Amino acid sequence: MKHLIDIADLTRDDIVEILDEADRFREALNGREMKKLPTLRGRTIYSLFFENSTRTRSSFETAGKWMSADVINISASTSSVKKGESLKDTGLTIAAIGTDAIIMRHPSSGACRQLAEWVAPNGDGPSVINAGDGSHQHPTQALLDAVTMRQRLGLGTGSTTSFEGMKVKIVGDCLHSRVVRSNVDLLSTLGADITLVAPPTLLPHGVDQWPVKVSYDFDSEVADADVIMMLRVQQERMNGGFFPSHREYATLYGMSKARERAMKKDAIIMHPGPMLRGMEINHGVADFDRAAVLQQVNNGVHVRMAVLFTLLANGETAGF
Amino acid sequence: MKHLIDIADLTRDDIVEILDEADRFREALNGREMKKLPTLRGRTIYSLFFENSTRTRSSFETAGKWMSADVINISASTSSVKKGESLKDTGLTIAAIGTDAIIMRHPSSGACRQLAEWVAPNGDGPSVINAGDGSHQHPTQALLDAVTMRQRLGLGTGSTTSFEGMKVKIVGDCLHSRVVRSNVDLLSTLGADITLVAPPTLLPHGVDQWPVKVSYDFDSEVADADVIMMLRVQQERMNGGFFPSHREYATLYGMSKARERAMKKDAIIMHPGPMLRGMEINHGVADFDRAAVLQQVNNGVHVRMAVLFTLLANGETAGF
Amino acid sequence: MKHLIDIADLTRDDIVEILDEADRFREALNGREMKKLPTLRGRTIYSLFFENSTRTRSSFETAGKWMSADVINISASTSSVKKGESLKDTGLTIAAIGTDAIIMRHPSSGACRQLAEWVAPNGDGPSVINAGDGSHQHPTQALLDAVTMRQRLGLGTGSTTSFEGMKVKIVGDCLHSRVVRSNVDLLSTLGADITLVAPPTLLPHGVDQWPVKVSYDFDSEVADADVIMMLRVQQERMNGGFFPSHREYATLYGMSKARERAMKKDAIIMHPGPMLRGMEINHGVADFDRAAVLQQVNNGVHVRMAVLFTLLANGETAGF
Repeated sequence: MKHLIDIADLTRDDIVEILDEADRFREALNGREMKKLPTLRGRTIYSLFFENSTRTRSSFETAGKWMSADVINISASTSSVKKGESLKDTGLTIAAIGTDAIIMRHPSSGACRQLAEWVAPNGDGPSVINAGDGSHQHPTQALLDAVTMRQRLGLGTGSTTSFEGMKVKIVGDCLHSRVVRSNVDLLSTLGADITLVAPPTLLPHGVDQWPVKVSYDFDSEVADADVIMMLRVQQERMNGGFFPSHREYATLYGMSKARERAMKKDAIIMHPGPMLRGMEINHGVADFDRAAVLQQVNNGVHVRMAVLFTLLANGETAGF
Repeated sequence: MKHLIDIADLTRDDIVEILDEADRFREALNGREMKKLPTLRGRTIYSLFFENSTRTRSSFETAGKWMSADVINISASTSSVKKGESLKDTGLTIAAIGTDAIIMRHPSSGACRQLAEWVAPNGDGPSVINAGDGSHQHPTQALLDAVTMRQRLGLGTGSTTSFEGMKVKIVGDCLHSRVVRSNVDLLSTLGADITLVAPPTLLPHGVDQWPVKVSYDFDSEVADADVIMMLRVQQERMNGGFFPSHREYATLYGMSKARERAMKKDAIIMHPGPMLRGMEINHGVADFDRAAVLQQVNNGVHVRMAVLFTLLANGETAGF
Repeated sequence: MKHLIDIADLTRDDIVEILDEADRFREALNGREMKKLPTLRGRTIYSLFFENSTRTRSSFETAGKWMSADVINISASTSSVKKGESLKDTGLTIAAIGTDAIIMRHPSSGACRQLAEWVAPNGDGPSVINAGDGSHQHPTQALLDAVTMRQRLGLGTGSTTSFEGMKVKIVGDCLHSRVVRSNVDLLSTLGADITLVAPPTLLPHGVDQWPVKVSYDFDSEVADADVIMMLRVQQERMNGGFFPSHREYATLYGMSKARERAMKKDAIIMHPGPMLRGMEINHGVADFDRAAVLQQVNNGVHVRMAVLFTLLANGETAGF
């Protein structure tokens, strides 16, 4: 594997291998005082973020540093982008400096694929890792969601991994979310039964071609769910008019206490963060045991270590 | 010690131990070409700054890196905070990533205490270090001030440490300053004789309950002072009306050449920085030998190494 | 050598030594998987940028990290500069923290020389490296340009280095460019034949005292050139009125396909970046083999390693 751009590029085996690797990093590091592996010593990772991010950028930076790589951050607000340089030239410049990987978040869907074609036309330049491109893909988010489900629901490891029969309900703004696209690709590959729950105005165009069911009625989807994945209301991507009011959205599509009580005993609630408590999720519910939000964050570092290891380590062992 | 939130949480022994440790780091590193100790290798430190800072953030970052820790910076201007995430969730997210410490500066008094309760409810999560919370506390500033006074005035080390009889005058905006609160707590614990010198409008409410004297007349406080600590005029925290004009403030409460000449031979001038020369301190006086400003900065790195060592090292030796 | 402020401070031998050192770093690292030398382990480098930059800041950061130094970034937008601190005090503060070098970019011509006088008055403080000061100097750019020319045109190494007879045409906004001043100093020291090509409004005052020819007619300068160095149109430094329109500028002073075809077989095109394709350089020409732009970027890291090594290593070997 050279790049990580789109979950649809991965086979089932690729996915399972990354999940297994993430579990191995987790077991090796969680609870350990000394979090430092020599695995990527002497490798250079540039993170190039054209949108704000706390958790994704710092999670990747942590993953890189725990593997002893050099990590260099560029954020659009302090970069030459303001001087009118094209994305192509920014990418070629970073590649020419001599980086091994470029982790990019960009507001335009497809920007990461483009970057990979520019910086590694014959597979020879740096690896490109998509940290979120517009409303298109966010592959490491889908991977960390899957590893969290596998851990919480006991869905096997390695060749025994099976999401068959798991009912996953993805609730909220499916139109602007890159999380939903990556998750549908990944969960359908692993055999899960996916339902998107959203008002018609927040469903993507052409959703009838996706391997999912669609529902407008959250209440009828709660009882049989194994996973309810709440999406963030992407206020910054909306230009208004998608639903009548915040209050109405919270009432119809929020994870309320009543809905939480109607869930199966072992079913879990997920959220990619950042959460807007009181909007898409009830303030108290976000702290319940069945909310896997912080386990998702924790798995995020190990999934990113697994991805960096897979793309960059070139035959070395993980070092633990 | 788990966190460093408030000087009032520390015993006299805790304080002296940190001052001694800072001196040891200073002796081990100052003048040495190779400033790198293995002490905190494999530990992770997040710095989370919701206000601008050059010296405090970079001093902590330097301290962490000189002890071989991984240091990851988050500034509010590029973080998810803009997406509406609560401080609680930002803190829990960083804790879930797996950091060992969170160094936070925040505009709200009390925010660091809150954060510590959220991220380490049973003492199990990361250490929280207060790098300035509103107009409340800035404990590492008070520690570095104390270590500087001890060095400059020959006030002992270890069990011989004594600030008894030392006359410390703290001059200027005592209302908005977090430096003054931390210093009063620390210096009174060590036995110093403290006077706040300020116009009535810039004295904190309830100052009559503090272990200090109060004076409105700077000139009468100069001659017997051992330390005159000038405070920065916190223009960004004021909403006007606290004193008639900048010129009047500088005349009444600035460290002028005449006042400097009236000081005792070995008395020192301190300033937490950044200085506004011409405002709270005369342009030339700031460069005089008795101005300890740069020694304060230098001690700042060693105090922060001592704090990180005390909170995180868990029984290891300092490595020098 | 203590600082790197201005190419005019360097002798011919100083320059050639840095070019040779850069070549050695390039040979040691290019194509190597593990880019990490122990050379500057335990040294601390502050980068202090008062203007936006992608390539220069990250190139220096990469150079420092590949030599195992600790690199700490301060950008003006998040620093105490906003609180009114003077440049002198910012510099003295960083020096007091204990850094070995300050790499500074500043909008005022001469600011780096001033900083060096403040932080190392007797040659005792940190080294100052000029990463661009106003429209004055950008010495590492000139050094990386020279190393690129030497490589591409076969101009020798060490004592055989000779730029005699090389015709270098520097085209565009010579008035606001710090690149042109550094390059004229360096290339004239090495014996090149330099022509500035620009409209009269974009030539610096007093250019008749410089060791260059001047031309207003780009077309007549193309055929005999060995190097055509295009300058970026510094829109952010102009306040209008320097040329009638962007279209006219591109027509008269842009590197068009026709001009490229008129060049000698082995002549090269250079650009310091960031490029505005379609403005100072034709979109397609920027990707031609004779365009050395990315080789300049790649050499940039090795030149900065050579500079840091020369200023900081103090007798150690480079470690490869």
